[in-house]
Amino acid sequence: MTGRIIHGGGITAAARQYGGRPEEWLDLSTGINPNPVPLPEIPVTAWHRLPDQHLQEQAREAARGYYRSGDILPLPVPGTQSVIQLLPRLVRSVGVAILSPTYGEYARAFTLAGLRVRQVSTIAELTADDGLVVAVNPNNPDGRMLSVEQLRDLHERQRRQGGILLVDEAFGDVEPAASIVPFAASMPNLIVFRSFGKFFGLAGLRLGFVIAEASIMSRFEDWLGPWAVSGPALSLAASLMESDTGAIRNRILQRHSALETVLRRSQLNVAGGTALFALVADDRAEGIYTHLCRHHILVRKFDYARNWLRFGLAPDEEADQRLAGALESDDFRSVRPKI
Amino acid sequence: MTGRIIHGGGITAAARQYGGRPEEWLDLSTGINPNPVPLPEIPVTAWHRLPDQHLQEQAREAARGYYRSGDILPLPVPGTQSVIQLLPRLVRSVGVAILSPTYGEYARAFTLAGLRVRQVSTIAELTADDGLVVAVNPNNPDGRMLSVEQLRDLHERQRRQGGILLVDEAFGDVEPAASIVPFAASMPNLIVFRSFGKFFGLAGLRLGFVIAEASIMSRFEDWLGPWAVSGPALSLAASLMESDTGAIRNRILQRHSALETVLRRSQLNVAGGTALFALVADDRAEGIYTHLCRHHILVRKFDYARNWLRFGLAPDEEADQRLAGALESDDFRSVRPKI
Repeated sequence: MTGRIIHGGGITAAARQYGGRPEEWLDLSTGINPNPVPLPEIPVTAWHRLPDQHLQEQAREAARGYYRSGDILPLPVPGTQSVIQLLPRLVRSVGVAILSPTYGEYARAFTLAGLRVRQVSTIAELTADDGLVVAVNPNNPDGRMLSVEQLRDLHERQRRQGGILLVDEAFGDVEPAASIVPFAASMPNLIVFRSFGKFFGLAGLRLGFVIAEASIMSRFEDWLGPWAVSGPALSLAASLMESDTGAIRNRILQRHSALETVLRRSQLNVAGGTALFALVADDRAEGIYTHLCRHHILVRKFDYARNWLRFGLAPDEEADQRLAGALESDDFRSVRPKI
Repeated sequence: MTGRIIHGGGITAAARQYGGRPEEWLDLSTGINPNPVPLPEIPVTAWHRLPDQHLQEQAREAARGYYRSGDILPLPVPGTQSVIQLLPRLVRSVGVAILSPTYGEYARAFTLAGLRVRQVSTIAELTADDGLVVAVNPNNPDGRMLSVEQLRDLHERQRRQGGILLVDEAFGDVEPAASIVPFAASMPNLIVFRSFGKFFGLAGLRLGFVIAEASIMSRFEDWLGPWAVSGPALSLAASLMESDTGAIRNRILQRHSALETVLRRSQLNVAGGTALFALVADDRAEGIYTHLCRHHILVRKFDYARNWLRFGLAPDEEADQRLAGALESDDFRSVRPKI
């Protein structure tokens, strides 16, 4: 749990093992929109100067509108990973419960810091000792959704016992109605993390937002220090969050539907997912993973669930056909469960 | 000491107070090359994907050549500020001595974390209790330089007593012969911070490098977490650090010489500086600061040294003349020392 985690995105390593040039691989190992939005113009000052107050304010106002955070001006951070790293400093010695399985960096950060971490499967397993409850919603990788009502109940319970609820909405952009953010201003002890790069297809930017009561955001701000987020990231956030995102959403939904079609045609059992990926449960998972690598297609496998594979969206129909072709090839039919 | 520090770059705030549109101000308040290098092409994958191993490796190799770090592969970080924030975790409970006055964020980070900080003026004042010694070299804002020999002696002394020497070479690019980096591979317990944005004029990027023994770099890497540096920053670093930087250096030196000429013609006493800024010592400093603000020129003043003003480089001759004009105007002659 304390070692570094292998995430998606390891095309370089996969190509070294299975051959082919990295740029020729089809990377389905991440949950990032495979069709990055066209980049708006970035003013030269955003590259040149330290990201100043004005640029910060523009990005924060755009984020307020986009996330509908009301009285809370979201805090830009250099990727939500950067604030996951800081969580142990925020909660110090409390017990942590993580609705699991989920994004592994939560358990890793708390365990590294020496905190007691319980990985629970359901809300029913939570106890009064869980000073911090972490819920990724919708969840990665299985897509489990807690309703706004469930989250409000959970928050109320945490609030009463002096605890904190953290909701990570990294994959929440496609279904804004499921977001807890519009209620956040009246929910002290709630922290929401949002990811900018997944929906817009700009994960290289390193940008996320924290939405929480002022005293919590202020602590993150102090720990990250001045100029934590790059000028280009703030500039792009300000432009893109104020643009019409309907077309991005529709394209993602269309790509998701195409992915599910390919998987189902190959008799793969889609057991969950979000708009940005599909989770397949199959006893042949390891064999399928290796088979796809031989076809220079990378998906995500899981140490803790050997029968799961996560498929990210393919960028276009050509890529759909490439995946379908690999899943229909003669050698695929010979993939057997590992004993 | 624990409050947030006002740095240069506050054009927005200055314009609110003294009028004018921010983009019309002449910003001399930072130590950043005012002529950003032309941006090389950034591949779309650097924006789109999480910054992968390949991109990291390219940037690190380019940094190894550029900084001449030999066996050490420099660690990219999202601005050296991000690792200043982490220093208290690295050294924990030791006493810290900072060669002062210098960049204020060092003292701030340690004080916030509850460490004992001594600000010393000379090497002679250091004691065996100083588990960490911080030397910014060349120093900001006075330009004080420690020779490679002095740094090696200081490091040897720290090493013998189980301490660490941190050398911040944020302003070191123009004089590579003064860098301690080429010796770092044989100097355990030495940490060097380098800044990418100042010399290349790309401070908005948020990129710096740490050069230290593997176990120290590994701890910073763990604390920052995966993908701490943006894809565009890594991509630009890989390109620019392998390009011919002689023209950038010459332009900076030419701009520095032009700045000193303007200041001296106005009878201002240049008491120090580096290639990227000049430090003026003058009893009328506060009056000069306000006078320049009225002319919509922002320089840097210092709470702890009321007679100092730091002037960053003006981008071109037109800007030189604008500064000269403000310093030769009739109302400038009436600026008097504050009593």
